[in-house]
Amino acid sequence: MHLSKYFLPVLKEAPREAEIASHQLMLRAGMIRQQSAGIYSWLPLGLKVLRKVEQIVREEQNRAGAVEVLMPTIQSADLWRESGRYDDYGKEMLRIEDRHGRDMLFGPTNEEMITDIFRSYVKSYKDLPLNLYHIQWKFRDEVRPRFGVMRGREFLMKDAYSFDLDEASSRAAYYRMFVSYLRTFDRLGVKAIPMRADTGPIGGDLSHEFLILADTGESEVFCHRAYMEMAVPGAGLDYGDNDAIKAIVDDWTGAYARTDELHDEDLWNEVPEVDKMNARGIEVGHIFHFGQKYSTPMGAKVAGPDGQDHNVHMGSYGIGPSRVVAALIEAGHDEAGIIWPASVAPFDVGLINLRSGDEATDAACADLYTQLTNAGLDALYDDTDNRAGGKFALADLIGLPWQLIVGPRGLKEGKVELKERATGEREELSLEAAMNKLTAWHGEMKARFGG
Amino acid sequence: MHLSKYFLPVLKEAPREAEIASHQLMLRAGMIRQQSAGIYSWLPLGLKVLRKVEQIVREEQNRAGAVEVLMPTIQSADLWRESGRYDDYGKEMLRIEDRHGRDMLFGPTNEEMITDIFRSYVKSYKDLPLNLYHIQWKFRDEVRPRFGVMRGREFLMKDAYSFDLDEASSRAAYYRMFVSYLRTFDRLGVKAIPMRADTGPIGGDLSHEFLILADTGESEVFCHRAYMEMAVPGAGLDYGDNDAIKAIVDDWTGAYARTDELHDEDLWNEVPEVDKMNARGIEVGHIFHFGQKYSTPMGAKVAGPDGQDHNVHMGSYGIGPSRVVAALIEAGHDEAGIIWPASVAPFDVGLINLRSGDEATDAACADLYTQLTNAGLDALYDDTDNRAGGKFALADLIGLPWQLIVGPRGLKEGKVELKERATGEREELSLEAAMNKLTAWHGEMKARFGG
Repeated sequence: MHLSKYFLPVLKEAPREAEIASHQLMLRAGMIRQQSAGIYSWLPLGLKVLRKVEQIVREEQNRAGAVEVLMPTIQSADLWRESGRYDDYGKEMLRIEDRHGRDMLFGPTNEEMITDIFRSYVKSYKDLPLNLYHIQWKFRDEVRPRFGVMRGREFLMKDAYSFDLDEASSRAAYYRMFVSYLRTFDRLGVKAIPMRADTGPIGGDLSHEFLILADTGESEVFCHRAYMEMAVPGAGLDYGDNDAIKAIVDDWTGAYARTDELHDEDLWNEVPEVDKMNARGIEVGHIFHFGQKYSTPMGAKVAGPDGQDHNVHMGSYGIGPSRVVAALIEAGHDEAGIIWPASVAPFDVGLINLRSGDEATDAACADLYTQLTNAGLDALYDDTDNRAGGKFALADLIGLPWQLIVGPRGLKEGKVELKERATGEREELSLEAAMNKLTAWHGEMKARFGG
Repeated sequence: MHLSKYFLPVLKEAPREAEIASHQLMLRAGMIRQQSAGIYSWLPLGLKVLRKVEQIVREEQNRAGAVEVLMPTIQSADLWRESGRYDDYGKEMLRIEDRHGRDMLFGPTNEEMITDIFRSYVKSYKDLPLNLYHIQWKFRDEVRPRFGVMRGREFLMKDAYSFDLDEASSRAAYYRMFVSYLRTFDRLGVKAIPMRADTGPIGGDLSHEFLILADTGESEVFCHRAYMEMAVPGAGLDYGDNDAIKAIVDDWTGAYARTDELHDEDLWNEVPEVDKMNARGIEVGHIFHFGQKYSTPMGAKVAGPDGQDHNVHMGSYGIGPSRVVAALIEAGHDEAGIIWPASVAPFDVGLINLRSGDEATDAACADLYTQLTNAGLDALYDDTDNRAGGKFALADLIGLPWQLIVGPRGLKEGKVELKERATGEREELSLEAAMNKLTAWHGEMKARFGG
């Protein structure tokens, strides 16, 4: 992409209402624009990151055997009356009346609708296990939306729902999602730790939330240092092997890890002092096992091998890709701007032309751009006539993994400069060596994060 | 994908309320489910097609230089008061009050919001031309929603908006979108004809709609037979060459083509009798050039080279991917079911195991499935223990381009059967020959439709 043809409206300063780093940086880097309180447009740079996050979530859901559907945003109130949640949900639910006076709502979540889909089609245990998910915009009418897309009103959510004949298979389904979340966050390039959680209004008897560690996180986290070293299962894992999946979950829940909400001083004191980690974190995923809470009132049942009808056992599993984008920034930024993990960076490399209009420099940049594209690297080519200082500041702000800096002086000696955003290290290299380094990195990243 | 692990809830019969072929077939083939009047869930098979349509639309928008953003579904009423459309829009607009009593709405289109984004950031002619698009769910509260996703209330729309300094550049932007629509529908595997159109509530002085020809279409179409033979520009076309783009538009608007709405008997009678085509069509795209209709009331202006402020000239360009899915079915089906164009078929081939449970047949199918996957073909493997008749009927219903039929009798002679859905032709082939035929087809399709 040539910057001159892109739409990247960066701001010199973040508006005052932006209180946290991710909100400030997303506004400054031209990733989002607020349209109303807690409602955002995603500008091109932000949307690219959001789509990459979404795609990794999707691939790991599919790998774990979940099947993608897409439910609408607008739901009928009647469904929610069946579960009893229409009145419970309170003012966070955006209630709507259509032109015929029917009560509708903008879905804040989809337990009711997916249960309705399930009961309409699935009649036999032979069609189980089943896990259906979708990635759709939700609305929760927060009193005081704040922190940008971290706590917006309209937000993107991946929500999956598992259906099983009995408690044991249902727990196995829960464990598969648990493990798929470990893989998802690992591919997103962050450390996320599963913690015992309250089930809240979703209900149920078993729940974990996944927290990304970040100094600016909203929650206080108490966890055993062992989590920093735990291995995340590779892409070859067998989701059909319930015992192996359970063993991974046991590993990842064996050591102490709680947020302040469920923190237990007695258990915490059993952790050796040297292993105690007191940190901050951001909730980015939440999974629930709630058994028959919805299937019973809504009559979602299947015939079992015994010929009898059984209300199915269910769980639900959420990740908010729009919130994850902000959380990744909280976990990865410095004074100069964002530092993206390779797997979700909006572009792999910023190609910086230090003298646009200079024939030799333009030609070298055009050639490097073609080489990068042919090698499968997505480059943002700063071909504008801005000054070098502005180009460097922009590149640091938007946080692409690499900056390839091309100027007339270096070119005379056949050299370009390659800067790694995360470390700040700059290296003078021949054009060929720079290309080799970038393609080697690209290959490594694909092997490591490509799933 | 193994059918036993998929979610494909086919219906024996279409519900009575489904009046047209696409609605009936989408329900029967388990592609969609109605949740409320005019509001649908997309089940896995339907969602796959929808995403493929969306992706082709996206690629051709990008090729034409448009840049993707994503605006929210919920908008503030204030924006619509600025343009004067809040009151004009009537009951089709879904109006919402949030918890603080603010007037909101579910966007039926985005001229106002995109103009607001534009005016916030773009100040100089140097940043033009600019074309921003998004692919987002819209809501129009139709009195009597019908025909399934062909005329739903919640529907997916790609809407692009062009911004230019003056009338001439703005028309050039319009022509680029015109040409990108030709390419889009060509890649979708259908014949779509651009026709002069009314501008309606969007406003403006120039408008075309694109209609897919289908016997069951809603509109009567009068057009010159020349359209059947006109060439669609290849992927290598140069969108930077305004003259070349205009020449393509001239070609495609030179001959008579009107729907009944704007039909002109006098002009029609000038068409030689032998060239007259009287057909039916379905509107799948609509483009508008409306100049300063929104920029003037909303104050969207840039400084020109003359140092003066100019209200920008605009156009908007819509394609409804959800409606396109239904239109493709209207244009491609028979008594037995859907016949998908190769570029949007949910899978390339249905692999039919005629005796699941038979060791040799299962092994041959597993091997073929692996070969297909490795060759980049997406196969739906019917590994269920349904009877052969049911498997054939299902394969015809869901309309994948090919059926690869594997049974114990054929295997003894080293043979499988390959059926082409569109022609109904069946051929007995060695396993190797069948694979070669499929991979050759796949390569041709990628070259022809892959963009």
